[in-house]
Amino acid sequence: MTSLNQVTDAFEERLRAVLPEAAFRPATDHYLTELRGQMRGQGGLVVAPGTTDETAEVLRLANEERVAVVPFSGGTGLVGGQVAPNLSRPLILSLERMDKIRAVYPQENAMIVEAGAILQNVRDAADQHDRLFPLLLASEGSARIGGNLATNAGGMNVLRYGNTRDLCLGIEAVLADGTVVSGLKRLRKDNTGYDLKNLLIGSEGTLGVITAATLRLFQKPENNATALLVVPNPAAALELLDLARDYAGDLISIFELISGEGFRFISETIPDHRLPMSEIADWMILGEIGAPRGVNADAIWQSVVEAGMERGLILDGVQAGSEAQRQALIDTRELIPEANRRIGAVASQDISLPLSVIPDFIPRCREALNRFGDLRLNCFGHLGDGNLHYNVYPSKGRNKADYANIRADLIKVIHDLVGEYGGSFSAEHGIGRFKVDDLQRYGDPGRLAAMRMVKRALDPNGIMNPGAVLT
Amino acid sequence: MTSLNQVTDAFEERLRAVLPEAAFRPATDHYLTELRGQMRGQGGLVVAPGTTDETAEVLRLANEERVAVVPFSGGTGLVGGQVAPNLSRPLILSLERMDKIRAVYPQENAMIVEAGAILQNVRDAADQHDRLFPLLLASEGSARIGGNLATNAGGMNVLRYGNTRDLCLGIEAVLADGTVVSGLKRLRKDNTGYDLKNLLIGSEGTLGVITAATLRLFQKPENNATALLVVPNPAAALELLDLARDYAGDLISIFELISGEGFRFISETIPDHRLPMSEIADWMILGEIGAPRGVNADAIWQSVVEAGMERGLILDGVQAGSEAQRQALIDTRELIPEANRRIGAVASQDISLPLSVIPDFIPRCREALNRFGDLRLNCFGHLGDGNLHYNVYPSKGRNKADYANIRADLIKVIHDLVGEYGGSFSAEHGIGRFKVDDLQRYGDPGRLAAMRMVKRALDPNGIMNPGAVLT
Repeated sequence: MTSLNQVTDAFEERLRAVLPEAAFRPATDHYLTELRGQMRGQGGLVVAPGTTDETAEVLRLANEERVAVVPFSGGTGLVGGQVAPNLSRPLILSLERMDKIRAVYPQENAMIVEAGAILQNVRDAADQHDRLFPLLLASEGSARIGGNLATNAGGMNVLRYGNTRDLCLGIEAVLADGTVVSGLKRLRKDNTGYDLKNLLIGSEGTLGVITAATLRLFQKPENNATALLVVPNPAAALELLDLARDYAGDLISIFELISGEGFRFISETIPDHRLPMSEIADWMILGEIGAPRGVNADAIWQSVVEAGMERGLILDGVQAGSEAQRQALIDTRELIPEANRRIGAVASQDISLPLSVIPDFIPRCREALNRFGDLRLNCFGHLGDGNLHYNVYPSKGRNKADYANIRADLIKVIHDLVGEYGGSFSAEHGIGRFKVDDLQRYGDPGRLAAMRMVKRALDPNGIMNPGAVLT
Repeated sequence: MTSLNQVTDAFEERLRAVLPEAAFRPATDHYLTELRGQMRGQGGLVVAPGTTDETAEVLRLANEERVAVVPFSGGTGLVGGQVAPNLSRPLILSLERMDKIRAVYPQENAMIVEAGAILQNVRDAADQHDRLFPLLLASEGSARIGGNLATNAGGMNVLRYGNTRDLCLGIEAVLADGTVVSGLKRLRKDNTGYDLKNLLIGSEGTLGVITAATLRLFQKPENNATALLVVPNPAAALELLDLARDYAGDLISIFELISGEGFRFISETIPDHRLPMSEIADWMILGEIGAPRGVNADAIWQSVVEAGMERGLILDGVQAGSEAQRQALIDTRELIPEANRRIGAVASQDISLPLSVIPDFIPRCREALNRFGDLRLNCFGHLGDGNLHYNVYPSKGRNKADYANIRADLIKVIHDLVGEYGGSFSAEHGIGRFKVDDLQRYGDPGRLAAMRMVKRALDPNGIMNPGAVLT
């Protein structure tokens, strides 16, 4: 790979000749800081094109002059894909001005949006047509759909509706050399050549920049049954999932594991928030069944709860009796990442495992970490997908800086164990810059070789998000 | 692209040095004929490796000596991807000896299979563990899963469960140079780099050969309600779909449009088959709701039928009263392709359209074809996915040879109209060799450019299935 250039005054002039004044903005902290302060960019020139053609022009020029480009969406990524501390003055390419909902097609369960649209706005637009766009993330108020696509974001509804890639029918994207790949058809099936859509989705801005997308919509569940249930342990939680699937099949929209530690973190850092249960249990499940008009979600949930209690899989619980109570349960779950941030993690893991090994993994990993001394663990997440956020925190009264010297070892212990169980060290967050070494260590060599072939083919000068995913 | 070699005696010797005798077989008609006799390979050497390592060795040697390789699976593809009339003595790489079901993980809703496994055997293995592998094709008795993946096959259950790519959690594949890409993890979420799985799925053997896959399984619906309903026209059929979605949401597993012509073709060519209705209507829907234990599919269907009749969307119908009757309805639908073959199509189209334009498209296309004189049309297929098989047949008493001179024009008229409506000229069959020109004509230029970049990167010598997809 040839070496890259920073943005010079001359290059800025070339950009100013093809972009309107409104496209230029100062490189404020917003563009340079990782959300949890774990990484910081040195600076850069921020440009926010207003159209796909402008985006293509920007990339064409950058590629011609071999200027490093860091695509920037909502800035909510958790693996440092959006900031480049390794680059002195890169071109920061923000999609924020391309934020329109272009059209909604309720009969087709499809909508076309620009990449800069805020996730919450996308969800709201679908809702206004009585449809659901199911991507549900704690960061939905600031995350932008282009970033969600670039990172193949997960969230709480994956169990039923899939990852972001599964919610996308087509994309429009610009490759490193300015080639515009147009694929915004509103089709469920289109077997006409290679799947470039999925290649770009999840490539974290290293192969091109997504500028717009055709998204899948769904019938909104007409009635929901939502409950927070105390379970004896993760094994029981998985048995409960089996049971719920038996009764409700694919109608289960949420099945989240919550640990007592998560609730204690909320109590500690956000004391005003009222927790749904007065006593904090060790393990809980937030579960939801969403049903169409012809099906009664409450009745199904009732059957599941009765059978679950009979088998000792459920010890206690609260069921939402209203939409407000339902929202309160979901809000509590979504507060956990904020509480985590306030506590300050020594290390945060986003792992996935084959479902059947989880009951084994959790205590074995806890045991393996005990040798590092007194630590608090918050293990929670999307159990139905086998996706756990396995986060390690300082013991009370200490802070993460005290653990700086053991951090790398601790992560290695967890990731080694995940590898041993056939799991993944990044279930939904991606590689970004934080997990580049993990990818080299745990990735399949053949897969890595193929990834490099693809990278070289689509971005021969290596201008796209250098330092992320592959180095 | 450098020119390719045929299999020489010396090359065969090299292969015999690394493969067991059992891997070699004569190039019989099975490997050389397209199912409907539309294309024929000249010959070739057939090798059927027994392991992934053997497959890798074969490709490594072929790449080294620039020998053209035609991957061969079940041979049921409908676009000529599996036969190469353009090549004199290619290496035909059959996966038939790698046909094992390696393991089923019912709790994880996952199974690992080799690429040569017959689709029906895959479905049966899932069924034995009380799980569903939902890929449902008329050719399930001879199609092999590797070919289904390579072509991203569709079928009757796409509406609910997605295309083959959506049914796959991971693949193992061998690239042109012998690199083995291993990705058989049993994970729902694994965001660790580029999505090579989806790149290889649907690439029709032009980027590599899939040797094994981790497939998604589903809870088997505990109760089904299946009916054949007469509808006044396709617009009403789509309204009925809306209505059914309102009551049943994602529980609708089948929603197929059937034309009276399809039933008349069955009567004409398979007179022993008993049709489900004595009078043949112009337009019918085969619909099915599949429900888990906690939901009564019959009751929902009843509500849909009542509301549909009230609104004039349903004119008549039969509902399956037993599993045998259900199977008879599905069997009748699956007989249509066989009846079509016996009639002999002038041209078969596999198109998809945005749902909302279909009621417009069908009469407009009929009208456009009228100028070609007396033709019979059988327009049927996966309406819920916007995927129609729009097939043109000789009028009674004539045969397809009589229309040879108008065939190309006729296809162009249909595909042009499909393009005008934002549709696709290949919804589920792929490009193969039959639609290479269509891809050049209707494909987005940026997308085609990117496809060529990827092809050159992964198969620089162009040995993989030359003549298919891209030329």
